[in-house]
This record gives sequence, structure tokens and C-alpha cells, in this order.
Amino acid sequence: MSVLKPVILKIGGSVITDKKGELAARTQEMSRLVEEIRKASVQNLIIVHGGGSFGHPVAQKYAIKEGFKEENQKIGFAETHHVMTVLNGLFMDALIWNNVSAVSITPSSCVITKKGRIQRFEENPLIMLLRMGFLPVMYGDAVFDTDLGFTILSGDQLVSYIATRLNAERIIIGVDVDGLYDADPKGETNAKLFAHLTLKELKALQNRLGEPTACDVTGGMFGKIAELIPAIEQGISATIVNATKPNYIYKALKGEKVEGTLIEKE
Amino acid sequence: MSVLKPVILKIGGSVITDKKGELAARTQEMSRLVEEIRKASVQNLIIVHGGGSFGHPVAQKYAIKEGFKEENQKIGFAETHHVMTVLNGLFMDALIWNNVSAVSITPSSCVITKKGRIQRFEENPLIMLLRMGFLPVMYGDAVFDTDLGFTILSGDQLVSYIATRLNAERIIIGVDVDGLYDADPKGETNAKLFAHLTLKELKALQNRLGEPTACDVTGGMFGKIAELIPAIEQGISATIVNATKPNYIYKALKGEKVEGTLIEKE
Repeated sequence: MSVLKPVILKIGGSVITDKKGELAARTQEMSRLVEEIRKASVQNLIIVHGGGSFGHPVAQKYAIKEGFKEENQKIGFAETHHVMTVLNGLFMDALIWNNVSAVSITPSSCVITKKGRIQRFEENPLIMLLRMGFLPVMYGDAVFDTDLGFTILSGDQLVSYIATRLNAERIIIGVDVDGLYDADPKGETNAKLFAHLTLKELKALQNRLGEPTACDVTGGMFGKIAELIPAIEQGISATIVNATKPNYIYKALKGEKVEGTLIEKE
Repeated sequence: MSVLKPVILKIGGSVITDKKGELAARTQEMSRLVEEIRKASVQNLIIVHGGGSFGHPVAQKYAIKEGFKEENQKIGFAETHHVMTVLNGLFMDALIWNNVSAVSITPSSCVITKKGRIQRFEENPLIMLLRMGFLPVMYGDAVFDTDLGFTILSGDQLVSYIATRLNAERIIIGVDVDGLYDADPKGETNAKLFAHLTLKELKALQNRLGEPTACDVTGGMFGKIAELIPAIEQGISATIVNATKPNYIYKALKGEKVEGTLIEKE
């Protein structure tokens, strides 16, 4: 089944939730973003959102990402998936009651990973949604893993997988900072924003920074970007913008000039 | 992947919602049922629930079952799926916050139908859940259809499909009446309850009643039962019990004697 090249919009968990709280949704931010998405009216859009203060605290508490090791993790897996469906439900509320024909796809129901990487993906529902002109919405989720039993599938891995698989037109990554910096912009006052990076420059940066970690020097941003490398290698551009600033997502969706980091193959 | 023969429990939408209302959940009934399910502690249980006053009114309003015919049905499809995830979320709340390791599987994310009948089913998440000892929960949903674009997949079709596919031990159908009657028990005071039916008797009844319709003389029950015939033919028994009566589901799950209709191959 052929589909037009989709635009993939990632909305970070830090944008639609308050990461300092627990189960703290920012419903007003969701409504504002939905209004921007509605106004931009992009055909073949796919949205993927993160977990923020819904998925992360419980996944961490029960070490879900590390896989099934003991019985008491099971309720943790159940909770992690459940709170993600709750967050997704709030975002779907904002879309659907604003008359957007959006349909959620549950990653744990259609994706199986192997050692944390996507191995199987029943992509027919996603493709049928796109062909019929719906807006599919996916999210980071607790999923089943052939080797680990279960693990966490990040929204970022999902974005990169879908982008390469469906040969996306472009990727937009909405976060709570202005783009990719050479240091943590929330800590370092002298952190410098990259306005544009080629794949070569990105890889040089990767070598300089070493392996991405949860507390990498770019404030956790580099780990997310490293996930995108396969898509960028395939010629799909990625724009990182501050989704907490009004109209930035709208402008990025419309392809208008907006402050942020544009990463391209060349 | 082999799994032990599962027990499949269907919970009718009329049990966990008020069908006279719209989006009217019976959360107290959900809590009571969860307590019975928890207490019965059946291994390899799968739950499937119906839509009641969540899925049905909106699906009917937009004629979702009949398939995609015009653009304005799209928001109806989105709404139907969304309200079903909301109802499922309430039921999952009741399970998970009562410490049951239950995980929902979203039918529209893993099932594709062809002219209303299940054609593809990515069953790996369901099987992995069972193997790890989780309680999988599915539900009637608005799904994608290769020929119709979209349609409604009933919880009853799902029950029968999963039962035959996984060679279930038995099926329990929880409804808001005492079993299968020869007339509508909500209208006819002389309606007679069948305590036991063989497949042969069931088929004779089917010939006498004609094609199942939404308003068949058994109060809509016969249409649900007709869906189960392939499973019963395979030797899987089905017990219809009144889930609104305390402890009936508990007893049925434990395999204890309980008022209702037992349908067996012979």
C-alpha cells in the first residue's frame, strides 16, 4: 500500500506534562498545540508523543526498561502502560473534541521489540489511517520484547522507525528548549544553540560527546537526536523546535522559518 | 509459542454501562466484578468487554459498522474508538488500582477485518501477555477493514475468534439477563430459560428464529450466541450468566454451579 510521504511530529513529554510532578498533565498546552496543528492543516501528519511525568516515574520505579526480572515488576508494567493510555487519552480528548479526526495507535498492541529495538510492527492500521486521511497518534509505551520479556519503547525510536519505514518527508521534534545546544541550556548560561547541523557535523559531535546517556551534557537532548540518525542518513530532515513557545510548532509544520536546530544529511 | 488453554470472559456493555444513558459508566459494578475476578484467581484468563452506552450510540449515529461512505463519518470513527478507550480506561483503572496486572490490547491497533470479519490479528502481544501471567483485556472497537475502510468489530466476534485460535478451555459470557431464553425476558413474562443446550439444539433454535437481528425475539441474545458457534463446534463450552448478580461471575470463573445457560458441543 503506497502512502504520500508523511510529516512526523514528535511532541516531548516535557511539553505536555510537568516533569516535576507525577501524572501532571498540561492540558492547556495540549489545547494550544492542537489549535496549532489544526490551523497548519498538514496532510499525512503522524504524531508521536512522549511520556513525561506519566510514563517515566513508574517505568523507572519498576525498572521496566531493563526487562522482566521479578514478579513484582508486572504490576509496574501494567501501570506504566495504563498511565500512558491515560496521557494519550487526554491528548486525544483535545484533538477529537476540537473536531480533528485523530485515532490513537497503541504501540504495545502492534510492536514487538528485540533487546529494546523494534523487531515487528503491524503497520497496516497506521497505513490505512493515513490513506483515509486520519491523523494517527502514537506514543512511547511499555512494550513486549522477545528477549527481555518487556521493555520501554521510546517515542524517539518510534519516530525514527516510522520515518525510515514510510520514507517521511520530514521530522519535527517539539521539545521544551530552543534546539540542540553544545551544553545543557538549563544549566550552562553560555550554551550555544546549533541552528544547522549536517549529518557529518552531528556525528563529529557524537564522537566528542561519547555515548548518549540520560544525563548527557546537552541536557538529555543528544540521546534523542542520536535515535534519528538512521532517518537523517536516509535524507529525511529533522527540525528541533521549542514547542512550549506559541506558534513555533505551527510555523515548523507550515515549513516557515522558525528558531531551532535543523539537521540535514548534507 | 504455546500457551495453556485460556478461559475467556466476556463482559457485556450492558453490565458495565447504563445503556439508557450516554457515556454512562457503572464504575461500582466494575469494581465489584474486578473483586470477583481477583478472588477467582483464574490462570490464563482473557477479558473482552463490550461498548454499551460508550461505543454504541456514536457508532450508530455515524453508521460506522456499514463502512466508510462519506467524509463526515471520519470524526465519528475517531469518536467511537476514543470513547471505547475511555470506557476501557475506567475498567483498567478498576483492575490495576486493585493490584491486578492487567494490560489492555487495542483491537484497532492489531486487528484488520475484511467485510466485517477478522482477517489479520497480530496476536503476539496477547500471547506474550498470557505467557508472562498478565491478564489481557480487549474490547469491541471501531477497526479498519480492507473492503469497507472501517467497521465495528464486536466483542462477541473477538471472543469467538480468540477462543478458536487459542483453543480456549471455556468461554463465559456475562450479560444483564439470566441466560438464553426462548423469548425476550425483558418483555415476555413467560420466557423460558434454557439451562443447557447442545450445539444441535442451538442450531435447531437458530433455524426456528431465523437470521439474528438487532431486535431478535431472544432480546438480542441470540445474535451474540450465533457468533460463538465456531468455538462451540471446536468443543469449547460457553456459559451465559447474569453478571449483574453478585458472585455469579466468580462462581462461573471457579467452575462452580451457577444459574445460566451452558452450551456444549454434545
